[in-house]
Amino acid sequence: MHERQKRKRGAGGVVITASFRRDTGESIQQQLYLRVRELILTGELSIGQRMPSSRVMAQELGIARNTVAAAFEQLQSEGYLVSKIGSGTTVSEKLPEELLITSARPSEEHSDRAAKLAVSERAEHLMQLQGAGVSWLPAFSPGLPAVDEFPYVVWAKLVAQEWQRTGIGSMNNDAGGYWPLRSQIAEYVNSARGVKAEADQIIIVSGNREGTELAGQVLLNPGDLAIVEEPGYAGTKSALTAAGVKLIPLPVDEQGLVVSLVNGTHRSARLLCIAPSHQYPMGCTTSLERRLEILNWCKQNSCWILEDDYDSEFRYQGRPLPALASLDPHANIIYVGTFSKTLLPSVRIGYLIVPKDLIQIFVRTKLAMSGPTTMISQRAIATFIESGMFYRHVRVMRKIYAERREALKAAMRRHLPMLTIPAQEDAGLFLISTYQLSAIPHEDIEVARAAKAVGLYVVPLSVHYLSDNKQNGLIFGYGALRPDDIDEPIRRLADVLQNLKTDHKA
Amino acid sequence: MHERQKRKRGAGGVVITASFRRDTGESIQQQLYLRVRELILTGELSIGQRMPSSRVMAQELGIARNTVAAAFEQLQSEGYLVSKIGSGTTVSEKLPEELLITSARPSEEHSDRAAKLAVSERAEHLMQLQGAGVSWLPAFSPGLPAVDEFPYVVWAKLVAQEWQRTGIGSMNNDAGGYWPLRSQIAEYVNSARGVKAEADQIIIVSGNREGTELAGQVLLNPGDLAIVEEPGYAGTKSALTAAGVKLIPLPVDEQGLVVSLVNGTHRSARLLCIAPSHQYPMGCTTSLERRLEILNWCKQNSCWILEDDYDSEFRYQGRPLPALASLDPHANIIYVGTFSKTLLPSVRIGYLIVPKDLIQIFVRTKLAMSGPTTMISQRAIATFIESGMFYRHVRVMRKIYAERREALKAAMRRHLPMLTIPAQEDAGLFLISTYQLSAIPHEDIEVARAAKAVGLYVVPLSVHYLSDNKQNGLIFGYGALRPDDIDEPIRRLADVLQNLKTDHKA
Repeated sequence: MHERQKRKRGAGGVVITASFRRDTGESIQQQLYLRVRELILTGELSIGQRMPSSRVMAQELGIARNTVAAAFEQLQSEGYLVSKIGSGTTVSEKLPEELLITSARPSEEHSDRAAKLAVSERAEHLMQLQGAGVSWLPAFSPGLPAVDEFPYVVWAKLVAQEWQRTGIGSMNNDAGGYWPLRSQIAEYVNSARGVKAEADQIIIVSGNREGTELAGQVLLNPGDLAIVEEPGYAGTKSALTAAGVKLIPLPVDEQGLVVSLVNGTHRSARLLCIAPSHQYPMGCTTSLERRLEILNWCKQNSCWILEDDYDSEFRYQGRPLPALASLDPHANIIYVGTFSKTLLPSVRIGYLIVPKDLIQIFVRTKLAMSGPTTMISQRAIATFIESGMFYRHVRVMRKIYAERREALKAAMRRHLPMLTIPAQEDAGLFLISTYQLSAIPHEDIEVARAAKAVGLYVVPLSVHYLSDNKQNGLIFGYGALRPDDIDEPIRRLADVLQNLKTDHKA
Repeated sequence: MHERQKRKRGAGGVVITASFRRDTGESIQQQLYLRVRELILTGELSIGQRMPSSRVMAQELGIARNTVAAAFEQLQSEGYLVSKIGSGTTVSEKLPEELLITSARPSEEHSDRAAKLAVSERAEHLMQLQGAGVSWLPAFSPGLPAVDEFPYVVWAKLVAQEWQRTGIGSMNNDAGGYWPLRSQIAEYVNSARGVKAEADQIIIVSGNREGTELAGQVLLNPGDLAIVEEPGYAGTKSALTAAGVKLIPLPVDEQGLVVSLVNGTHRSARLLCIAPSHQYPMGCTTSLERRLEILNWCKQNSCWILEDDYDSEFRYQGRPLPALASLDPHANIIYVGTFSKTLLPSVRIGYLIVPKDLIQIFVRTKLAMSGPTTMISQRAIATFIESGMFYRHVRVMRKIYAERREALKAAMRRHLPMLTIPAQEDAGLFLISTYQLSAIPHEDIEVARAAKAVGLYVVPLSVHYLSDNKQNGLIFGYGALRPDDIDEPIRRLADVLQNLKTDHKA
């Protein structure tokens, strides 16, 4: 580190010391500029004070006159110095005292904002919601797909190809999304989900949450009511809360959302959110009868439906039920799909299917909220689908997940007999268990906390409730765990429970 | 195409015809399922009607009995069929007539939703805002960087590397963003922009718009007032409108936002948005005096500041002014930065710098709105910065843009002398011009439309105003045009203007 300390006594008695460092990459000019600015802001150079001439100063500091002149010019252009014919260069008189004082404080106090301003109500509400975090651990993040089986090399090649060949094509000129991908999605939901949609009803988003918030923004006014499943997916609830929507929890049973329980003012709800193919976190499928009841209720009460179809690709017995949107193409349904489960959450691509007459307003709002969705991922997915690799990948994954699910069940029977496995579909990437406090004398949040301390991530069921009528349970994601790797973490969780019990008795 | 047509007369006189195709990839079971479902939904199989046994049906259709049984099982699990001991399998009586009728309608009528529900007020407002579209054309999209000079090969390699090596690391466990990138940004804004920020004040977003909407969501309640520059960036206005915020346009002059013009009820504004380094679209820099006035006004009126620092890297004369956020580290300032100009819009990475005590609420809200930002891009940028390539790229680009700007000015002098080039910084990626209707007897929107018809994209100035007090002008982005390629499109635009004039006279 080379350092030179220079000292200059100016014409008006001004003393300027400046240390120039050669190793910072900052030019001498910039260092001088910063130094003088600092002296002004801290009050060491007072208002109206005359500066030495650039010639004199250059000489005394042993630097080039051009350098001093350039630094002065910058200070002048920014208003710190003023130059008048006859009186030379002086510190500006327009700098208010207030600025000088505040800037002199050390930067560490940054969080001590002078006057703390309040944040919004929706942000406050959001902070009170539980369970909407992100944490990806193979054991046992729900919704984490087989990160060990993803074709990274192929995908990396696809993505690299797109970056190299597209140039300005990497820019998104169609805010609704890459057209070939939208066409492929239309075909896919038609054949796989029975949804008759066309490409111009599809808008590409960065995932389920963005899609849900977008729907909330477009369809509901702040303060409007939305019915959500109780228990239900935290992501839906936080996305709607961010949109300023008020949530009404409505219980689910084995048949799905109990829409007959809606009463009183809740009939004015403007949106009803469900995951009919595979309810999260209870794992049930909404029965056809209940589906029809829900469609009917929404029609009668002029209520939008948000159908979250996040993992219907993975069903290990029978075929998935067709989407709700396939039952009545004339209903006011917004369908949300995602590639987070079939590919990876990190591809950050999902989609909404909306009624044709609303596509423009959805696209405009999406653009306003977050700009267009990354084009490279869209193009890469389109190629992946086009080549047939996508369908092959989903088929292979379905088999893999079925095995992992069986391995998980076996490990749970072995090590966690105190947990109840309620009736649920053999589907998706998670398994829900429940328990009574007589079996495990600890709230699920406590269990989750103790598990986290040993590197295991189990999501407690209770955080998925908005009301106080909660059930204790643990949710196990198995998507990223090879069958051989499932027993060990389950055994460790059993140990955690054992230790908790011991502590309790002690 | 291999096709077999089968016909079956069942016990109850039911006639089932089924065409099985071998070339669709759909199994016979799925085809049979769909066929029976269709017969039920269209009413050809009526409610309560008895189905033939699977044995009989398999025989008659010439397919395996297992296949029929599996299809029946699925129909049963979905509630279309019911099976009772003694009475065999019948069409469910619980299917309401209504469903049957609606589903029989052709899908083309999808946009004719039974009862069209209204959309939200904020979405309606958004549709009324002008100029917030996306269109990337080298001649002359403002804000489009040098897509011809971006190191695609290097970038593709970085991105591919990240995809191949990260596995579960491609997942974002820190919703605030990739920590090394946040640290690098902290260092960068400190040295380049004078902003004393630490990594834990930085949150990575997918760009300027998401950052702006996020700030609007966290800081303001729906209906709260925000002061925006008039004329001003459409992206800021649409993002805030999406957040339900009400906009107050306040004029800018050569010194920046004229904060002294705020009056009456507008003093209750909770947010003031400015781009002090380089105002869009007027191209001016806010003077130090005006900056202090703005800081002061906001402090006195408990008003947040949103500082949009979108292209301060590119200044071709002198050094950029330090950011507003550097003047008073205790002010209530949210700083928005982006890699859209220094790299490419398609990397989809920007960032907010927020007061330390608000980072959690920003991160949670961001997560709720759109989930975490893509990790791969964050990691790739971090490597790009770490290796020194980023700084080198910005330096090289600065020189290139300076040349392009000069070439544009020269071409405009040559071919468009009727346009006025108002005083503006030699900075950024666009040049603004204005004109009187005496010079060009057409509104700028008309000119833009005529230009678009010949493949030229010029953004009209007038769409950047909220009030009726508009000026005519054209904005020229030159970032993606090589000096040699600038003359030709400018000449073509001159022809467009010439033809417009002729039309006018005719």
